[in-house]
Amino acid sequence: MDVYIEPIGRLINEFSKLPGVGKKTAQRYAYKVISMTGEEAQAFADAIVGAKKKVRYCSVCGNFTEHDVCDICKERDRRTICVVKEPKDVIALEKLREYKGVYHVLHGVINPMEGVGPNDIRIRELLARIAEGGVEEVILATNPDVEGDATALYIAKLVKPLGIKATRLSRGIPIGSELEYTDDVTLSRAFVERKEI
Amino acid sequence: MDVYIEPIGRLINEFSKLPGVGKKTAQRYAYKVISMTGEEAQAFADAIVGAKKKVRYCSVCGNFTEHDVCDICKERDRRTICVVKEPKDVIALEKLREYKGVYHVLHGVINPMEGVGPNDIRIRELLARIAEGGVEEVILATNPDVEGDATALYIAKLVKPLGIKATRLSRGIPIGSELEYTDDVTLSRAFVERKEI
Repeated sequence: MDVYIEPIGRLINEFSKLPGVGKKTAQRYAYKVISMTGEEAQAFADAIVGAKKKVRYCSVCGNFTEHDVCDICKERDRRTICVVKEPKDVIALEKLREYKGVYHVLHGVINPMEGVGPNDIRIRELLARIAEGGVEEVILATNPDVEGDATALYIAKLVKPLGIKATRLSRGIPIGSELEYTDDVTLSRAFVERKEI
Repeated sequence: MDVYIEPIGRLINEFSKLPGVGKKTAQRYAYKVISMTGEEAQAFADAIVGAKKKVRYCSVCGNFTEHDVCDICKERDRRTICVVKEPKDVIALEKLREYKGVYHVLHGVINPMEGVGPNDIRIRELLARIAEGGVEEVILATNPDVEGDATALYIAKLVKPLGIKATRLSRGIPIGSELEYTDDVTLSRAFVERKEI
């Protein structure tokens, strides 16, 4: 006999599929579900099925949307395209409520070690958007790591000859942090890329 | 415009209701759901509704079951009743695969500070089970904290006059740990409750 009765074991197993969730955490989540009312559990289940059914990728920028083309692509200034790795990066930038342009989600970055080349991410789609005209600047907002830098450089080399400005988010010491606690790579980078004031 | 589209925002909100889950974690879980296949998402949703619908409390011991009386109550030695605070304590003990008796889940412990008295937890039900006869020992396996100790003592005082053995799990230094790192309360307790070898 298993220690869990079947419906609980099954639910724990499902929760265990979520990122970073082990058996112990999955068990806590399962007990929470059991302590919910029937309506609450149903609302939870509906939200899962609903999100999966309703959410798709914008045919233009690749971000999450409920429609064919997302609201950002429809409503915002198309002269600037901010290129990111994943939809969650769009959320991070949108939270700032500063950027007024549109996005382009690559759904990955160039990573030869894992066999991801330029054709495996949405670079072709980006170039197609640019070919339609009207784009003045491409902001390369991939992560400041080896793959993110390589991808940004690769795209910059493709778009600059088209007379389009390619920019990259600035790197350096995080605001509010201290030199003493900044990691060596960031610190040496901040030193090399120091700016005149 | 919100940063999340409605179906994602709704799912994040549902995940945020799970214990210890903040917005960031809920977002990661939601993205995982979106990356699932339709069948996987449906199986997840079904497990939630299924667990809520099928799981109830055993009419005898109060543990989770799919039936009126749980398999443990049906199949095991009823001479010993192990009294615990919550269903998850049954799981913790069952994992050891050592105990052959039955359980009694109190669904709480006596806690005057939070207004929980002896009549608010399943002590009456425990006494009714004992009144049916055949019980030789009651193992008081509530947590080794103030409320758990008080509850165990309260129950012990009720069952001992009935000629039933009342025992408590031993407390002390956890096996494999070191004296140096044992907290003061545990250490002094282990000292006071030292046993002859």
